[in-house]
Amino acid sequence: MRRRLTLAEYKKGVLSGDRVVLSQAITLVESKLEEDAELASQLVQEILPSTGNSLRVGITGVPGVGKSTFIESFGNMLLENGKKLAVLAVDPSSQRNKGSILGDKTRMETLASNKKAFIRPSPAGNTLGGVAAKTREAMLLCEAAGFDVILIETVGVGQSETAVKGMVDFFLLLVLAGAGDELQGIKKGIMEMADGILIHKADGENKSAAKKAISSYKSALHLFPPAANGWYPQVLTASSYTKEGIDEAWEMIMKFESQAKTSGYKEENRVSQRLNWLEENLQTLLGNRFYGDPEIQKQLDKSKEQVAKGEVSPLVLARELIGLFFRNANQLK
Amino acid sequence: MRRRLTLAEYKKGVLSGDRVVLSQAITLVESKLEEDAELASQLVQEILPSTGNSLRVGITGVPGVGKSTFIESFGNMLLENGKKLAVLAVDPSSQRNKGSILGDKTRMETLASNKKAFIRPSPAGNTLGGVAAKTREAMLLCEAAGFDVILIETVGVGQSETAVKGMVDFFLLLVLAGAGDELQGIKKGIMEMADGILIHKADGENKSAAKKAISSYKSALHLFPPAANGWYPQVLTASSYTKEGIDEAWEMIMKFESQAKTSGYKEENRVSQRLNWLEENLQTLLGNRFYGDPEIQKQLDKSKEQVAKGEVSPLVLARELIGLFFRNANQLK
Repeated sequence: MRRRLTLAEYKKGVLSGDRVVLSQAITLVESKLEEDAELASQLVQEILPSTGNSLRVGITGVPGVGKSTFIESFGNMLLENGKKLAVLAVDPSSQRNKGSILGDKTRMETLASNKKAFIRPSPAGNTLGGVAAKTREAMLLCEAAGFDVILIETVGVGQSETAVKGMVDFFLLLVLAGAGDELQGIKKGIMEMADGILIHKADGENKSAAKKAISSYKSALHLFPPAANGWYPQVLTASSYTKEGIDEAWEMIMKFESQAKTSGYKEENRVSQRLNWLEENLQTLLGNRFYGDPEIQKQLDKSKEQVAKGEVSPLVLARELIGLFFRNANQLK
Repeated sequence: MRRRLTLAEYKKGVLSGDRVVLSQAITLVESKLEEDAELASQLVQEILPSTGNSLRVGITGVPGVGKSTFIESFGNMLLENGKKLAVLAVDPSSQRNKGSILGDKTRMETLASNKKAFIRPSPAGNTLGGVAAKTREAMLLCEAAGFDVILIETVGVGQSETAVKGMVDFFLLLVLAGAGDELQGIKKGIMEMADGILIHKADGENKSAAKKAISSYKSALHLFPPAANGWYPQVLTASSYTKEGIDEAWEMIMKFESQAKTSGYKEENRVSQRLNWLEENLQTLLGNRFYGDPEIQKQLDKSKEQVAKGEVSPLVLARELIGLFFRNANQLK
């Protein structure tokens, strides 16, 4: 049985950068037990004044694009530049069995063994909404522990990209140069979220194809309206093998960061992310109460069958279910 | 004071195709009064067996693209082909003041005066979620009244496109040929939703530019993965002035429809739309209860200020608000 620390112990450990306590604190926020949730919520509140000082970078791309090797070489470059790096993953377990990068520690050996890096695999067995919320809390804990760059990785084929986009400052899309179908497999809408596109594995025979692909990505991006911050997403090439382009990727992010700070967009974006986070929490908690009600679960299954068959109007059923839920709620204590 | 009909009167009137009663029935589903909502829900249930037989087409495009003239010429072509046509609009009032097409009846004169067409402007003064839900119900009422093509129009710059995509069989995007920036002004993600793109106003001096723009749209679409139904969105040109391309637009939709029927995608898509509709209703009704609670409204405003300032964790506040809500709910009768 895991021993739970006290609020004061968690706080002290996290703020002093104790990696063991940080790990335990993240386990706490990932817990589904109500008593843990209450403590986790207090802990996040306690460390809040020490958060917000990192650069938050989302990294996405389909399996096979080389996210693990990129994070390894990109991360080592950051460490050499004196940064303290945390790497988190957002993805429900169901999508993590085809070569989970962060679960597969051996592929990030040098990062994992560095005291200035903190690597945290994706929590297993959770639904997406929960994992995304918990990743945001884990990110705050890492910030409070003094990590100044946080990479948040997602596989780019699920529904977690929007969630990650909603918690980072910069969203990087890794792609490969292919035969005109560069974006095959990338989920709809992902390209439009990207602040930067990195054509990865640009080495050896791939190098010239990668250079050529730049213009096709650029012209595709040109079809999208510019983002609210006035930033035009850049397209770069890089190889984690030769290390070419790794520095340039960081320079792009720093340029974005500097522009966002000057224009006030960075703070503005974070305020709006926090407000969204409040809304998401409200909806998640409301949904948990509703969908967690055993009687609702039973009725909802029946209702879905009736709706699928087209027998009963979803409107009628929704009104009945909500009525039932609040009658039940009123009968509790 | 509007007289409310009985359930039986509404049902009989709608099923017999009485346009006056149909209008009144749509007014009923648009009503915010709880007693109307209950009756509306019963009416939708009663007419449900007579729904589902129309072809549902969403039409979107930025203001100025000529949606009203397109709907007029496209609609008249359909009427000449013996179809019965209903035209509905989904857009919150706030976005309807810059040249609302359907509000501006004079621009759809010939359609409006035809007995086989039914034109219904967007309900005013509502929030998006509500309008979208009510438009879906209005669509069912129109089907029950015997209209076999339903056009649902949205302005393409708001948040209503996803809602419309979720209630139609075919989603048509109207665009203009421009100087390489064809999609300027189109909201992110809209192009990826389209089953067909129509480059409008392809007449006179615009004609050659429109033809040229076909290939740039096609190559942009090529960057997106194919839709679940295996359909590759088509790109056509049309002029509502010369009527060139209007028939071809209909042929494209008929081809899509025939393919979707054969493959089973049409029914599959409608089942999944109904299930989503149930979820949406549940979330709307839950949200109405929560956000409609006066004490929650007061506290939420305070909470938002605290969150914007970064003083309190959204997690803590969300837990407090939800706790407060259910304590209040339990105290009601």
